[in-house]
Amino acid sequence: MTLPAKTSILDRINLPADLRDVDDRDLPQLAGEVRAEMIDAVSRTGGHLGAGLGVVELTIAIHKVFNTPHDRVIFDVGHQCYPHKILTGRRDRMRTLRQENGLSGFTRRAESEYDPFGAGHSSTSISAGLGMAVASRLQDTPRNVISVIGDGAMSAGMAFEALNNAGALGARQIVILNDNDMSIAPPTGAMSAYLARLASGKTYLEVRDFGKRLTSYLGKSIDRAISRAVGHARGFVTGGTMFEELGFYHIGPIDGHSFEHLLPVLRNARDNARGPVLIHVVTQKGKGYAPAEAAADKCHAVSRFDVVTGTQAKSKPNAPSYTSVFSKALIEEARQDENVVAITAAMPSGTGLDKFQELYPSRLFDVGIAEQHAVTFAAGLASEGMKPFCALYSTFLQRGYDQVVHDVAIQGLPVRFPIDRAGFVGADGPTHAGSFDTTYLATLPGFVVMAAADEAELMHMVRTAADYSEGPISFRYPRGEGTGIELPERGEILQIGKGRIISEGSKVALLSFGTRLGECREAATVLNAAGLSTTVADARFAKPLDYDLIRQLATQHEVLVTIEEGAAGGFGAHVIQFIANEGLLDHGLRVRQMVLPDIWMEQAKPEVMYAKAGLDRDGIVDTVFRALGRSGISTGTTG
Amino acid sequence: MTLPAKTSILDRINLPADLRDVDDRDLPQLAGEVRAEMIDAVSRTGGHLGAGLGVVELTIAIHKVFNTPHDRVIFDVGHQCYPHKILTGRRDRMRTLRQENGLSGFTRRAESEYDPFGAGHSSTSISAGLGMAVASRLQDTPRNVISVIGDGAMSAGMAFEALNNAGALGARQIVILNDNDMSIAPPTGAMSAYLARLASGKTYLEVRDFGKRLTSYLGKSIDRAISRAVGHARGFVTGGTMFEELGFYHIGPIDGHSFEHLLPVLRNARDNARGPVLIHVVTQKGKGYAPAEAAADKCHAVSRFDVVTGTQAKSKPNAPSYTSVFSKALIEEARQDENVVAITAAMPSGTGLDKFQELYPSRLFDVGIAEQHAVTFAAGLASEGMKPFCALYSTFLQRGYDQVVHDVAIQGLPVRFPIDRAGFVGADGPTHAGSFDTTYLATLPGFVVMAAADEAELMHMVRTAADYSEGPISFRYPRGEGTGIELPERGEILQIGKGRIISEGSKVALLSFGTRLGECREAATVLNAAGLSTTVADARFAKPLDYDLIRQLATQHEVLVTIEEGAAGGFGAHVIQFIANEGLLDHGLRVRQMVLPDIWMEQAKPEVMYAKAGLDRDGIVDTVFRALGRSGISTGTTG
Repeated sequence: MTLPAKTSILDRINLPADLRDVDDRDLPQLAGEVRAEMIDAVSRTGGHLGAGLGVVELTIAIHKVFNTPHDRVIFDVGHQCYPHKILTGRRDRMRTLRQENGLSGFTRRAESEYDPFGAGHSSTSISAGLGMAVASRLQDTPRNVISVIGDGAMSAGMAFEALNNAGALGARQIVILNDNDMSIAPPTGAMSAYLARLASGKTYLEVRDFGKRLTSYLGKSIDRAISRAVGHARGFVTGGTMFEELGFYHIGPIDGHSFEHLLPVLRNARDNARGPVLIHVVTQKGKGYAPAEAAADKCHAVSRFDVVTGTQAKSKPNAPSYTSVFSKALIEEARQDENVVAITAAMPSGTGLDKFQELYPSRLFDVGIAEQHAVTFAAGLASEGMKPFCALYSTFLQRGYDQVVHDVAIQGLPVRFPIDRAGFVGADGPTHAGSFDTTYLATLPGFVVMAAADEAELMHMVRTAADYSEGPISFRYPRGEGTGIELPERGEILQIGKGRIISEGSKVALLSFGTRLGECREAATVLNAAGLSTTVADARFAKPLDYDLIRQLATQHEVLVTIEEGAAGGFGAHVIQFIANEGLLDHGLRVRQMVLPDIWMEQAKPEVMYAKAGLDRDGIVDTVFRALGRSGISTGTTG
Repeated sequence: MTLPAKTSILDRINLPADLRDVDDRDLPQLAGEVRAEMIDAVSRTGGHLGAGLGVVELTIAIHKVFNTPHDRVIFDVGHQCYPHKILTGRRDRMRTLRQENGLSGFTRRAESEYDPFGAGHSSTSISAGLGMAVASRLQDTPRNVISVIGDGAMSAGMAFEALNNAGALGARQIVILNDNDMSIAPPTGAMSAYLARLASGKTYLEVRDFGKRLTSYLGKSIDRAISRAVGHARGFVTGGTMFEELGFYHIGPIDGHSFEHLLPVLRNARDNARGPVLIHVVTQKGKGYAPAEAAADKCHAVSRFDVVTGTQAKSKPNAPSYTSVFSKALIEEARQDENVVAITAAMPSGTGLDKFQELYPSRLFDVGIAEQHAVTFAAGLASEGMKPFCALYSTFLQRGYDQVVHDVAIQGLPVRFPIDRAGFVGADGPTHAGSFDTTYLATLPGFVVMAAADEAELMHMVRTAADYSEGPISFRYPRGEGTGIELPERGEILQIGKGRIISEGSKVALLSFGTRLGECREAATVLNAAGLSTTVADARFAKPLDYDLIRQLATQHEVLVTIEEGAAGGFGAHVIQFIANEGLLDHGLRVRQMVLPDIWMEQAKPEVMYAKAGLDRDGIVDTVFRALGRSGISTGTTG
């Protein structure tokens, strides 16, 4: 496909209402223009490209057929919402995508009335849509509710829970299953295979007259376009599918790049549906942009790139990423011990486990977007003496929290939790920040909770976790590059519950948990220069705490500051509870607790976010000065 | 069925190995003896009766056919595990069930090698079983893994996630779907309806020769018993079921009370299965005990009862339960405002919402065991201006944690979370304790987090939550009876973030969050009598904190103690972070933080558990005395 140089139709469209005046026959041209606009924007900002390219026609068809924003359209995850943003009054801001103060990379209620429900995590759209559909019924305010969900997102239990409830409630709701046979990685799981069989027509139990069935369900106004569409489609499932068993009327698969298929089917659903309808739409991720179509990941997420060649502007890293260091360290442990196995929930590449999989394919388990199952599956493995590493992002581990509590922690099973993307993550914004894991894990009896201060420490923690078999253990590390510190061949086994002193002073103690240690060192330099002799310590463990170290810091300094890349109630809370209950506060120790601020921080570069949060050198120095009754900071920079 | 007076066969069985010597023909008699034993035991202890009665034959058949404990059998939830306990060396302790120092009411790894995976929450058994099956393969140690899961538990997303993964992995795993068309309440949802259609034979797509299909899948050794079993069964599904689409071989439905059905099918699965098998077994909850069969809830959970009549020894309550007060208060709010709707995840009775449902059937949504969906469904309702109350037990809200973070809190949607069973719950033990909700909720920006000190306060909080529409709000309250305080007609609207002073003193401040307030009052009486003038305050809010109140308590007292029925990192942590960072600790305030102990507390009466935890009058007095350097307590009781 050649991208159009002009956007003559798109230029007439500010809001979906304008789109409704465009003739159906001009929509393919519009699709080309939207693609061109989107490719140009993302080539400048980076972002999620492939998913949006795949749903250009679908997005246009939805806004053409449905009366948005009165009708609600919910994009699951939100990776695919860029064409939607272009068509809903945000075209002029597309080049601010994922930048500080710019458009969110996901749908967002605060951003537009055309985003009735925000996203970021997957598989929420059917539940949210059902809530809206039920509200419409209770409020006697008819409206269409359309949830657009990918086939990868269907592996998550909550999508099943929603289908199960929707089928029983019978509310009028439209689910569009956007089947591109890809989530971020190629999907795994039996459901995915099932959808592939549906799409290929191999599960058709018998072939009946689709029009007849559609008529009986949707009403009598089947028009000719449907019949034509049916003629073009690969075929229609006519009964007995899983979705029908769950109470949905199931239409499709239809060609998601053909307006001749999309428009009549959507119009009929709009005009005639009486209950839950699932429209199975087959699309191609990366459609219409040759470099994306050719890429293995269909350009799921890209840096800035050259539009002509598709070549991405990858900045040369200064140090290996934490993720890659984790991956290498785990591979080494797997080489040493065949009981080491790894689990990912649809993120083999994001977690670095793709490398593990290449070497140990039978010991890597990609369970799909299914964090609940991932955790308990790991618990089952651990119960038999295996050494499972259940590697999730901090924000996604939230989905398996009850399983962490109930199946792992209460039973004291040695599941290892590598927690990637701890702390601020930058462009993905608040839905992806790893803010809460220390709080929700360190409160659990018997859990060992670690945070790596740098990538060498991460190696030690991988080794320590592999070695430790007395119960659950976690270690967190951030997104992005490490510090560039020299790395050992293999990590060392750390003593459980022991921190380390980095440098010794006598007046101020900075106790860090995680990668703010570098900022603490810099702050100590400033403080020492200002005559405040400063100790810097790396706690390593939020649980069990190093009581000796904390007692020493508390009794031998005037000020004790805890610093972590997590929200309130975590590491610092446990430290201060200990020193309070030990009576170490009774005689005037000035203790301060530095945590992530109590707001949902918007996207920006992580270092900008940390500076705003006060969790950098200047913020630490300022905290110490204030604790001592001095005002301002001595470095002359912000504070 | 008349229960046998003697247990001549059962008396010969200490462990399942003994059972394997019993002739197949004697198993029905044994089933009667196990029932009698179980009924007698539960009549003395109370506990879960109906579920166990329904699986007596199934449990016997499993232990007869499979080589437990080498083969692993995992009972989902565990409500139905009493016959299993009787047959696995625990018969002599059955009359200690759910008592302090007695047998757990659930399976428990620490209790027996025949319990390879503990439970309490539902829908975990397939995931755990898959982990074990994969471990068996990786370790080259062949064993059978059998997960026994109820139809109600199949509504949970994690069961679907597990099926989806199991079907793809193809490991040798047996799932027994125990279909009694009941969970705790009659199940809701499309899946349940689907299973009912399967069981009634209405979904059979075509009737083929079952034996032929079984032969082709399981191997060639089909014996005559199978053919006989098939003849007796209601029919066999022969293809195209949801489970087969997910990669399972699906056998059944078969009669779960007939050894003629159970034994040959289980033996064939044992001897011939090569991949995942699902055996659909139809049973009757409460089977074999007339009062249970006749009861609407099939005697799901009972108090001690008279074996002959089934009459339960219900002790007369001294005060209405928190649950019933919540229910009445919410009904009043629903009467005043038609936007008030309520959501339960398969617990209409446990949450008190059954009464709401009677009055407002169209405004009560029982979504099944599906907490993830429950939360996001509520968010969808809230996004349209409804006032959803998503009522869950504290321990089950853990299952919807990511949805609370991502769909509710980040979007600032006003979903109301009534949190029942906060704190210790008694006989259900650690899997059901409501320990962590304050910690994992109060760490979220923008959340309003309340705890009721008594049932009148609970009424205020229901009203306050109904009135508050600026964002998410929760209120927690314990299991069991209230304090008997006089109740208003309707609750008052509380000022958000404002606590209250109960009684004023000058030296010691006790700041309570939740129902420990009564113990604080009693402690204050003791302390005042000992010459320590004591202030008692009820925080009401863990978030936002009442900064003025805390500042007042911190500056006008020598000792400040926070008390809550929650784990570390919660209310007290937020209080102490505030006073630390405000500098209010710098001059020698003695602050102490009383939280649940950092262990998994075993079952006992809640008051016993709180005494052990030190969260009672004596524990509070003792904490204050120690803070002031006095030893022991003045009351002469324990401490």
